[in-house]
Amino acid sequence: MDKIARVNMTERKVTVEPLPEKYKGKGGRWLSSLMVSDEVPAGCHPLGPNNKLVFAPGILTGTRAPNSGRISVGGKSPLTGGIKEANAGTPFSQQLARMGYAALVVEGLVTDDTRWLLKLDINGGELLPAEDLKDKGAYESGNLIWEKYGEKTPFVVNGPAGEAKMAMAGLAFNDPEGRAARYAGRGGLGAVMGSKGLKAIILDDKDAPGVKPHDEEMLRAGQKKVADAILSHDITKKGGGLNSYGTAVLVNILNEAGGFPTNNFRSGVFEGASKISGEALAEAAEKRGGAGTMGHRCHPGCIINCSTVYAKEDGSEHVSSVEYESVWSLGANCGIDNLDHVAELIWLCNDLGIDTIEAGVMLGVAMEAGLAEFGDGPKAIELLKELYKRTPLGHILGQGAQFTGEAYGVTRIPTVKRQGMPAYEPRAVKGIGVTYITSTMGADHTAGYTIAPEILSVGGSSEPLSTKDKIGLSKAFQQTTAFIDAAGYCLFIAFPILDIPSGFDGVVETVNGMLGTNYTGDDVTRIGDEILRLERDFNIRAGIGKEADRPPEFMRYEKLPPHNVVWDISDEELDSFWDK
Amino acid sequence: MDKIARVNMTERKVTVEPLPEKYKGKGGRWLSSLMVSDEVPAGCHPLGPNNKLVFAPGILTGTRAPNSGRISVGGKSPLTGGIKEANAGTPFSQQLARMGYAALVVEGLVTDDTRWLLKLDINGGELLPAEDLKDKGAYESGNLIWEKYGEKTPFVVNGPAGEAKMAMAGLAFNDPEGRAARYAGRGGLGAVMGSKGLKAIILDDKDAPGVKPHDEEMLRAGQKKVADAILSHDITKKGGGLNSYGTAVLVNILNEAGGFPTNNFRSGVFEGASKISGEALAEAAEKRGGAGTMGHRCHPGCIINCSTVYAKEDGSEHVSSVEYESVWSLGANCGIDNLDHVAELIWLCNDLGIDTIEAGVMLGVAMEAGLAEFGDGPKAIELLKELYKRTPLGHILGQGAQFTGEAYGVTRIPTVKRQGMPAYEPRAVKGIGVTYITSTMGADHTAGYTIAPEILSVGGSSEPLSTKDKIGLSKAFQQTTAFIDAAGYCLFIAFPILDIPSGFDGVVETVNGMLGTNYTGDDVTRIGDEILRLERDFNIRAGIGKEADRPPEFMRYEKLPPHNVVWDISDEELDSFWDK
Repeated sequence: MDKIARVNMTERKVTVEPLPEKYKGKGGRWLSSLMVSDEVPAGCHPLGPNNKLVFAPGILTGTRAPNSGRISVGGKSPLTGGIKEANAGTPFSQQLARMGYAALVVEGLVTDDTRWLLKLDINGGELLPAEDLKDKGAYESGNLIWEKYGEKTPFVVNGPAGEAKMAMAGLAFNDPEGRAARYAGRGGLGAVMGSKGLKAIILDDKDAPGVKPHDEEMLRAGQKKVADAILSHDITKKGGGLNSYGTAVLVNILNEAGGFPTNNFRSGVFEGASKISGEALAEAAEKRGGAGTMGHRCHPGCIINCSTVYAKEDGSEHVSSVEYESVWSLGANCGIDNLDHVAELIWLCNDLGIDTIEAGVMLGVAMEAGLAEFGDGPKAIELLKELYKRTPLGHILGQGAQFTGEAYGVTRIPTVKRQGMPAYEPRAVKGIGVTYITSTMGADHTAGYTIAPEILSVGGSSEPLSTKDKIGLSKAFQQTTAFIDAAGYCLFIAFPILDIPSGFDGVVETVNGMLGTNYTGDDVTRIGDEILRLERDFNIRAGIGKEADRPPEFMRYEKLPPHNVVWDISDEELDSFWDK
Repeated sequence: MDKIARVNMTERKVTVEPLPEKYKGKGGRWLSSLMVSDEVPAGCHPLGPNNKLVFAPGILTGTRAPNSGRISVGGKSPLTGGIKEANAGTPFSQQLARMGYAALVVEGLVTDDTRWLLKLDINGGELLPAEDLKDKGAYESGNLIWEKYGEKTPFVVNGPAGEAKMAMAGLAFNDPEGRAARYAGRGGLGAVMGSKGLKAIILDDKDAPGVKPHDEEMLRAGQKKVADAILSHDITKKGGGLNSYGTAVLVNILNEAGGFPTNNFRSGVFEGASKISGEALAEAAEKRGGAGTMGHRCHPGCIINCSTVYAKEDGSEHVSSVEYESVWSLGANCGIDNLDHVAELIWLCNDLGIDTIEAGVMLGVAMEAGLAEFGDGPKAIELLKELYKRTPLGHILGQGAQFTGEAYGVTRIPTVKRQGMPAYEPRAVKGIGVTYITSTMGADHTAGYTIAPEILSVGGSSEPLSTKDKIGLSKAFQQTTAFIDAAGYCLFIAFPILDIPSGFDGVVETVNGMLGTNYTGDDVTRIGDEILRLERDFNIRAGIGKEADRPPEFMRYEKLPPHNVVWDISDEELDSFWDK
């Protein structure tokens, strides 16, 4: 991984350059955020010629380190107006790394309404006309690519929402079976790709040099420690929570805790929770049979296998994957407890190319505005279909929850920095609230998953309703997460490495084995902090400072059932996050 | 003016309290901005229970000082997210002052969809149900109020756009003949009033104590100086530019200078300019006769009389008033050169209760997005009518130019701090650009009208295309303007007092006569600066800092014909505005 590919859409030119010294030894979110920070003017229009998209595999991506097949995509977000890093697990990332690319940068834009496909090879490659894919759904686009360029061709495609420059559009990478369904979903990077006229990127790995670790043996030793930890922890082992029930194993747990946002964050408990739970998914997989399965994986080398395939009643495939965040956002948050409706909504999101979290939060706000009744799945499905048609309503909804709320004068809009909140109620689980509020990304659970100690008793224990020490807790999680995102590891390795010290050592060892560095545990925090601060610095230059580190106002005065709690961590405490 | 009326919409209660010591001797924008800054949490949702509306007559309003009948309305803007002061000339302001109120504060909100009318008397008054006015146009609402409560009843009404909480909604005050057409238009304060459930305010001036100056004689002496200056200056005298041709006298002048934004700021010259000019208006008034007239006034005591009444071909009244900003925004900026179409668009804006500037900038952006062709008046009329119907398209357009552009992924959006730019091209007239960019209000020409020296050779002379000394120029104008806005004077007194020293002295004398102060010319600058800084401080607390003091990005790289110039004052210079 010693070179960068650069695609200039204005000039329709692909070039390859050596990786500059300052970027060496960096990867994933570390590299994407650094390059965005270096190359994108913070004040630029996110859909204008000066924004860029940076694709960066993790430091370990392409090696045999388990669960290391993540790709980070960076750019200025059309949703938040700040820096954005969205990541996904996909064979695409592993292939890009093996082709020797530390990063692929897309810059400039076409000024007409044409569509292009980048065919990247180890020498650069070419931009090909892609009018045949124009406005095609992400699924169909992926299928057409495999038909035309061969099965197993790694790809990333933009859905019709991204082509329409809608701010909740994400980027769909291929899964091992070729579904365009592994999303770098958050923050509207699909709209950025849409603004550039780039519909898809495919990889031609002919003569790929592969990834060469600095110290193969050390890497192998680290790998084993990480794998052992994963395979021995209750949450991540074979037959463990994630493997058996998928991420939706969390539904009943969060609902019991009163922290499962329901009906646009009006309550922390959803009556229909069990019907959309991981247990219900597993039951459906067993009962319906056919394509339905638990324990699917998003990329080779994953040993957790938390992904799922949901089948229709007749056993034919409906959609993959059905995640906790999606059953929550498109289910409980909209008052919908019919798993088939939820599955259809997820399918539509995937095909449109939009973030399921943002879509569900948006639908909750739309219901708040009176565009549908809470619980009305068929009407929610209709609303999403407006995006394909590019109706005015589609143009409102496609811009996300904040925008939809503003269009209709709604005051109960559960967002931070204009990004919809994920599936944990900040009033009921304060630490994750601190993460939502202080994250450089806008409301984002993956930025610092304090749910581990607050709800799951992983990595210690912290009372969810207490405000005590939550700033420091979130900070520590955000730092570690940024390092994991840099390494290219799946965030779920955090469960075992938080509880099993040798697993944590293994993470550091794999990185050292790859890079030839002498990082220690302290460096994990230091590097994580460095990443957060460079992102924060970009945001400040973009006009997003401490005044944006705030919860939505209604959470300060509306009591959330069943605990009847408001947001009660002070602004001063929130501001102290960046002093720590 | 020694008391404050306070209307709590949550409790439906009206109370009267003495004017606190710290607010004494303040008025207009000074008082409204100070009270908003003191009482409104900067981070609150503009449409939530914690925002407030403050109505404040000027220091001199209600006296015989010429052209002093302005009212300032303050609050947190749903359009910009920052502090907002919008002002209008209306008999309402004079009556409110004579009733002894330094300010009227509206706070809280009703949580159902009911409408209320506040009948304010010297002891407070009462909130009356106003379901009969619900969703009625501003014109009809005004007419119904005069029918029910008597002619000459001073009122302010909210149009249907404000009731729908659309961010470009303004507040319509009565003119002397009862038209609901004197707008505190900018920044969406109509949406704030709409969020509170307040449809209208009327004044019952029974037993009004009147306004008592501290030194009647000094006031009278000052008045005379101001009046003499007004009546002797070419721009403001009887038969002068404003009186003969209305404010639209500027059309041909700006067009000649290449600073007349055309087709959504694509050019500085409009081919059809002469057809929508002040000269064309005067010609129509003469030719069509009937109701059409130049030299109308917005409040008693005005001695400039720059307002107009435009007649249809049959001589019946079409709309009042047809201002420069409106013929520009709804005309040239949309490529429309048909004055009857423009008049109809103005009528619709007034009846909907929306800001004509924002509406025209929005329509330009909508045309950019392909919703209509530039120049298509009938289609523009159709688009505006969507707001009455509250269609999804209406909900997009009603939120203004920035929002409309975002809905459709447009990058050429001529706004600053989310507020549409007025009728002067910042690339061609740099000083007004500095005002747009640095104003606490978002893009606003009235905040610091450097057009005077840059285009009209009033108050000295400054080369419009030059970047030299424009920061200081704008700063001086913004300070003086804030003082004029505090005094309650119409901004047009600036023309004579900039050129005629005794006129300036008269302004200071009238204020001293009213208050018993010893202000000098230096205090004008000092007080103006104090007002700007308290507004700026609110904005910073609301998250709107120096990074928001920027032009739209496209103006940095798109050359504006005919001078082929870009925006070329650096960010560093812009930042120095607040250091001066």
